[in-house]
Amino acid sequence: MRQKHMLLPTLREAPAEAEALSHQLLLRGGYIRQLAAGIYSYLPLGTRVLHKLERVIREEMEASGFDELLMPAMQPSELWEKSGRYSEYGPELIRLDDRHGRGFVLGPTHEEVITSLVAAEVNTYRKLPLRLYQIQTKFRDERRPRFGLLRGREFLMKDAYSFDTDWSGLDESYQFMVQAYHRIFARCGLHFKAVEAEAGSIGGEGETLEFMALAEIGEDTIVSCPSCQYAANLEKAVFRQQEGVTLLEETIPEMEEIYTPDTRTIEELNVFLGEKPESFLKTMIYMVDDQPVAVVVRGDHEVNEFKLKNALGASSVELAELNKVEELTGAPHGFAGPTGLDIPVYLDLAAAAVADGIAGANRKDYHVRHLKKGRDYDPVATGDYRNATTGDCCPHCGDNLVFSRGIEVGHVFKLGTKYSKSLGATFTNMEGKEELMIMGCYGIGVSRLMSAVAEQYQSEAGIRWPLPLSPFQVHIIPVSIKDEAQAGLAEELYRTLQQAGMDVLLDDRDERPGVKFKDADLIGAPLRIIVGKAASERKVEWLNRMAESEKEMINADEALARIHEICSSSKGGL
Amino acid sequence: MRQKHMLLPTLREAPAEAEALSHQLLLRGGYIRQLAAGIYSYLPLGTRVLHKLERVIREEMEASGFDELLMPAMQPSELWEKSGRYSEYGPELIRLDDRHGRGFVLGPTHEEVITSLVAAEVNTYRKLPLRLYQIQTKFRDERRPRFGLLRGREFLMKDAYSFDTDWSGLDESYQFMVQAYHRIFARCGLHFKAVEAEAGSIGGEGETLEFMALAEIGEDTIVSCPSCQYAANLEKAVFRQQEGVTLLEETIPEMEEIYTPDTRTIEELNVFLGEKPESFLKTMIYMVDDQPVAVVVRGDHEVNEFKLKNALGASSVELAELNKVEELTGAPHGFAGPTGLDIPVYLDLAAAAVADGIAGANRKDYHVRHLKKGRDYDPVATGDYRNATTGDCCPHCGDNLVFSRGIEVGHVFKLGTKYSKSLGATFTNMEGKEELMIMGCYGIGVSRLMSAVAEQYQSEAGIRWPLPLSPFQVHIIPVSIKDEAQAGLAEELYRTLQQAGMDVLLDDRDERPGVKFKDADLIGAPLRIIVGKAASERKVEWLNRMAESEKEMINADEALARIHEICSSSKGGL
Repeated sequence: MRQKHMLLPTLREAPAEAEALSHQLLLRGGYIRQLAAGIYSYLPLGTRVLHKLERVIREEMEASGFDELLMPAMQPSELWEKSGRYSEYGPELIRLDDRHGRGFVLGPTHEEVITSLVAAEVNTYRKLPLRLYQIQTKFRDERRPRFGLLRGREFLMKDAYSFDTDWSGLDESYQFMVQAYHRIFARCGLHFKAVEAEAGSIGGEGETLEFMALAEIGEDTIVSCPSCQYAANLEKAVFRQQEGVTLLEETIPEMEEIYTPDTRTIEELNVFLGEKPESFLKTMIYMVDDQPVAVVVRGDHEVNEFKLKNALGASSVELAELNKVEELTGAPHGFAGPTGLDIPVYLDLAAAAVADGIAGANRKDYHVRHLKKGRDYDPVATGDYRNATTGDCCPHCGDNLVFSRGIEVGHVFKLGTKYSKSLGATFTNMEGKEELMIMGCYGIGVSRLMSAVAEQYQSEAGIRWPLPLSPFQVHIIPVSIKDEAQAGLAEELYRTLQQAGMDVLLDDRDERPGVKFKDADLIGAPLRIIVGKAASERKVEWLNRMAESEKEMINADEALARIHEICSSSKGGL
Repeated sequence: MRQKHMLLPTLREAPAEAEALSHQLLLRGGYIRQLAAGIYSYLPLGTRVLHKLERVIREEMEASGFDELLMPAMQPSELWEKSGRYSEYGPELIRLDDRHGRGFVLGPTHEEVITSLVAAEVNTYRKLPLRLYQIQTKFRDERRPRFGLLRGREFLMKDAYSFDTDWSGLDESYQFMVQAYHRIFARCGLHFKAVEAEAGSIGGEGETLEFMALAEIGEDTIVSCPSCQYAANLEKAVFRQQEGVTLLEETIPEMEEIYTPDTRTIEELNVFLGEKPESFLKTMIYMVDDQPVAVVVRGDHEVNEFKLKNALGASSVELAELNKVEELTGAPHGFAGPTGLDIPVYLDLAAAAVADGIAGANRKDYHVRHLKKGRDYDPVATGDYRNATTGDCCPHCGDNLVFSRGIEVGHVFKLGTKYSKSLGATFTNMEGKEELMIMGCYGIGVSRLMSAVAEQYQSEAGIRWPLPLSPFQVHIIPVSIKDEAQAGLAEELYRTLQQAGMDVLLDDRDERPGVKFKDADLIGAPLRIIVGKAASERKVEWLNRMAESEKEMINADEALARIHEICSSSKGGL
């Protein structure tokens, strides 16, 4: 394409509102513009990247036997009431009434629609498995849209759904998707990890993996093992339990109160008492399905609410309000401890290994020391209720776990019968009996993926797009478009490459070279041909930004040959 | 693709709710399913047709120098308030509040968004013209969604916008689009006409053409000339004025009242008086920008409110309420006439040619006859205020105009400065002065186009898709999938065609032949290969549904050769 009349508004300065570098560079490179918080227009460059992503995704979905369909954004509220998600979903679900007063939601996802569709159309095992996907615009009214496309309110997703006759069928559908996702993200040049994860609001019974793009700005913590394949997100991560220090019974003195005025946090206690956080028994009061419990973890550990919820078989877990804490412990927040409480105490395994502990005294401005399990307090249960942390070891191989940040770009999920039950997706099996279909769902955030790739391929000057996603493979820049030889050679190269099916951008603007080069960096095409004074000798400057090589003066035909070689080997390899 | 595990639910019976045959056949063929009134899911077959349409549209838009972008569905209400359309648009505009109470609309079109985008990013003549388009989901809360995809509430559109420095630039952009539309609809195999039209709610100053798919169920009336290029929709159509009968002054008797009890309509008068409608002066009371006027047309003619509005330079024209009519004429509805009224009388040219007329007497149960212009009533103006009708002649060549029905599948529109003015899209011209950009907008209803093609290519048994749009070019049907020779040959042909890049459907189901053939008719692929008992001799039955030929037994390789020939010549030609 020709740059002159494209809508390609590059910016010299990063807009103040953009925190993430990928967001800044997508704005500066003229890829996207914000219309409202979390709502973006994709300019021609951004649209081209989206299309390339869509193409990779479509090819891999089709190769996995998934057929494309397209479902509406407007979904009747009744469907969401049937599945129970109308109330569960909260204010992130955008609701509206039509002119007749009928309720609709703007779909953040399509389990309800596809399940009711399949329920209406398919009723025999002979039509199963059924594997379907769409690439479609989704809506989620995020409380705090952030980082440009990373957490938006209107975004593009690929969502796929499988319907099987049994769990082993679901295993197969699920594995097809896991494999496809690995191929898709690899083709996009993404550095990613597939991590074990907890079920979110989507619900369901089974296994789930999240595909995480590795990035500092990621909102998720990934726990992984450097030696084996183990990887999980922080909510899900497990680890080998450490052995506690074994002390002889008699070496632990009687429990005693200590005066700790205004000392509420572990850090404050640490300073005040000069004891390490590892000796503290941090006691948190939770409401579990509206019943209060105390959860005790070591001072340097954090409670994992998902583990707690799962261990207690609860449907909701949240921290008690401060006045509730005061009512239950008899002391203001910051002085809770496991002794003398009237509510059940759940003790984390690492805290259980603290033989001689320090905790709140359940009395204002007091803590207790020499706390001993069994003697001074009695937990109703001991278990893993905490997050993994530095020093924890891989549950499989025992190596030290490492922590990194990730952006969730995809997930695969064994739904089981959650939706087929509530929306009546049944089939007649071989014996003529009616059964529920076993479902899976599989999402990729397409617009988010674009941002995640940009985040990984950022440089100070602009995004250095991986070849398969770059809006243009080649950028041709005549230094002076008014010079006939330069304009002529640039035009010739442009046409030759276009005819060969390449995506080429020709900078046909009458601008200073410095402006053109800065824009080229911001646009970020991996291959660049600069047509300058040597044009009359058919010589051009060649720059392969993927190879981080220096500019090199070569013959124009050599440049063409290199482009063909790079693009064809990349196509084959990706 | 393999039919067995596709979501391809064909129906033997037409669903009762579907009026239009295209709608019935799209449902029966398993192309679409309704989710709510006017809101449809596209099943895999429907999605494939959409993609083929999109591809044709993209190719022609790019060839015309338009760049693709993608704008959001959720648009801030403020933008629509700026353009004035927030209140103008009425209940068809879907409105909603986000979680913070900020107002949004779901875009039925994107003039506001793109104009404010361009206003923010482009400010010099050097970046103009700018030509942009998107293919995107639109929302319009139709009062009466109808005919499946023809009038839906959520639908797919291609909308394009041009920004020029002057009107001659707009002419060029507009002509590019007119040419592109002709190519797009021709490639889709559509029978269509480009007709002159009136500006709708989109507003603007200039020329507009509607592209109409010819179809009986169309909601628009097309007026066209069989001899020359003239075509317009009914609102816009003009014609040569017919000469009136010239009578000598003295031959017209004095006006006299006649008793016409309960005779209000032209038909009733026709029966009661035995006079032809051509002698009647039908008098309608209108409120024009809230001022009453009388409009007089011949008894066999209809008032054209658009012409009236344009002629009077009014911004609104509507029929007066019945009580208003009584107040102004002194008689109940049905007895109005041009004599003795206190309000301005506008006389249509054809009515002006009625020398000796019959009209209401402005008195209950009375009409008058021998009404003579100038003697018995005085119009303030005479002009063309009516619809074209049978017998009217082409304004260009004088041939008799013909009337047909059409479905609007596209329009091109010279917007001028309506949006650039209200949303501040200005640029600095060569002399450094600020000017408004001159805009055009250009729409194609993509999902509606799918329906219009289906309407034109219907047959009793199913849609006979034109080759470029059919979800599959070839349908291979082994009569018995259990027969090894049949299954083997079918599979071989399937793979060969797939590898050649064809879209092929293989009926790998274990169903009775009758079921398979009926389904094949409903699916509607143009080329069909039936692999039956002669498979062992590599003989197959060949059916080209485009040629309406009979089934023919030929060698399998001959079938492949024919497919290649048909598909490659069609690609070249289309």
